[in-house]
Amino acid sequence: MEITEPVVAWVAEGGIKNGLLTLHVRHTSASLLIQENADPEVRRDLERFFSRLVPDGDKLFQHTAEGEDDMPAHVRAALTSVNLSIPIMESRLALGTWQGIYLWEHRRHAHTRKVAAHIIGE
Amino acid sequence: MEITEPVVAWVAEGGIKNGLLTLHVRHTSASLLIQENADPEVRRDLERFFSRLVPDGDKLFQHTAEGEDDMPAHVRAALTSVNLSIPIMESRLALGTWQGIYLWEHRRHAHTRKVAAHIIGE
Amino acid sequence: MEITEPVVAWVAEGGIKNGLLTLHVRHTSASLLIQENADPEVRRDLERFFSRLVPDGDKLFQHTAEGEDDMPAHVRAALTSVNLSIPIMESRLALGTWQGIYLWEHRRHAHTRKVAAHIIGE
Repeated sequence: MEITEPVVAWVAEGGIKNGLLTLHVRHTSASLLIQENADPEVRRDLERFFSRLVPDGDKLFQHTAEGEDDMPAHVRAALTSVNLSIPIMESRLALGTWQGIYLWEHRRHAHTRKVAAHIIGE
Repeated sequence: MEITEPVVAWVAEGGIKNGLLTLHVRHTSASLLIQENADPEVRRDLERFFSRLVPDGDKLFQHTAEGEDDMPAHVRAALTSVNLSIPIMESRLALGTWQGIYLWEHRRHAHTRKVAAHIIGE
Repeated sequence: MEITEPVVAWVAEGGIKNGLLTLHVRHTSASLLIQENADPEVRRDLERFFSRLVPDGDKLFQHTAEGEDDMPAHVRAALTSVNLSIPIMESRLALGTWQGIYLWEHRRHAHTRKVAAHIIGE
């Protein structure tokens, strides 16, 4: 799910000119991703790649308490990022033209996810 | 090795109400991980997965000066994180209920590892 | 491409004694890497590993607008880091002895890349 808009809006509200934004996802089976926001196929290809690299139901895994997509979700989270820090320059996030911020759900079913956000600067 | 407790204690000592904690591991064959702290099988499964994905002794690697677990450790570090930034909110780290902080050793034998820690806030 | 020297020089110019440096690459097919700066074979082995793990021209990918190295570059960026935060202690970056900072180009051909840099501290 792309979260660039609410994040950008929240940064604008803060009125910080030069500073640093940090986002931290408070879960172990979801992650934060900065990726291309132009062609939605990029994110589908990322899903395809991660599903092949860390397949649901892999016999390697012992931790299967919550189902066959449980441990693969933890591995995908470990392979990506749970927190991100992006500079704020001239009152704007220093994202590149094609960069969007995504909350990446690694479980099969929808979950409510919380992201902690912090700004420091002046 | 879980390091959540000493990190949380160090943050508490600092007396910061709202701020940002950053941890940085000063090595290239170990990393920092935020993962589930409930079932220890999760971390064993992570080890299993990374051992399969980047096997010790892989013939692909030329950098073998320190043994067959040398280059795989660098790759595993590159696939994970060497630094983490976590917001501090209401005097507490904004970790999720199930999130623990781990120093992840990627070499086979124990090494002494140093983690730089920084807090900013008020 | 190693960027440790210009980064260290820029930090020194800032005159900050205790603080935090954040780097953010403003692209979705390049990343920032902290890795061994002693043996250049380490970085070549990293390239070999990532080329095998996420091969150019993989039939899995649908997003091929810019060629067969397009989507693999996005995946390699997702598997590594687009931003890094390193503490500044006693006026110096808290890098380990063997840690260098690299801008890692994941496309086959050279591109101009921009990295946003931010320092906070005193």
